[in-house]
Amino acid sequence: MRKIEHLGIAVKDLAASRELFTRLLGTEAYKEESVEGEGVHTSFFRVGETKVELLEASREDSPIAKFTAKKGEGIHHIAFDVEDIHAEVARLKAEGFEVLNETPKEGADNKWVVFLHPRSTNGVLVELCQERPA
Amino acid sequence: MRKIEHLGIAVKDLAASRELFTRLLGTEAYKEESVEGEGVHTSFFRVGETKVELLEASREDSPIAKFTAKKGEGIHHIAFDVEDIHAEVARLKAEGFEVLNETPKEGADNKWVVFLHPRSTNGVLVELCQERPA
Repeated sequence: MRKIEHLGIAVKDLAASRELFTRLLGTEAYKEESVEGEGVHTSFFRVGETKVELLEASREDSPIAKFTAKKGEGIHHIAFDVEDIHAEVARLKAEGFEVLNETPKEGADNKWVVFLHPRSTNGVLVELCQERPA
Repeated sequence: MRKIEHLGIAVKDLAASRELFTRLLGTEAYKEESVEGEGVHTSFFRVGETKVELLEASREDSPIAKFTAKKGEGIHHIAFDVEDIHAEVARLKAEGFEVLNETPKEGADNKWVVFLHPRSTNGVLVELCQERPA
């Protein structure tokens, strides 16, 4: 785990939250992106070496729709930047962590991503991400 | 907001969680500290320029005890490093954010800290922190 790549925050109204986080962070979002496979619309802000990713559900069965229905808006996941996602998945499996998708999938912001189940990580949804060649 | 200073994660058993995060992050905790005023025992890990802070309640009326009773273990707050905490509080108040403690209080890891109410920040408990002279 080289650094925290981003923090994902589940929101109900992306436009309103983008405006709110612009005022909170004192900086504009640098990117908007929709990820069809994950059912999300996203906005990204830079804070130091890390990013804040706002996530709005783009369809009813989106994991973000389920999250906000159950828990309301708030921090959804923490993503760590890794150099070799396959090696990191193997290491974490050997350590007893529960991997949700063993084959990395395409995430926002040019990443390969793998999620760990929160029940193996103290209730924290952990994402591993590795930069994809453009 | 210069960077994410740390992420606070509420846990029920600090010793077990410290061991778990050591395996997850692939690094040992660098510091243990209790903050009587906040009712917490903490462990800190470094990840890049950021830290992960594990928080266990040290008494029944600790905010962490209330959090885990209501929501279970998980991400509790996000802390941003600021250069001038008084100026940042003034800026955020003017922007309409709700400040929980206007006078900075002593936090863990040699910090002055101020919290913003989650109802003004999309359900995210936001901490501002500024290094205290040792």
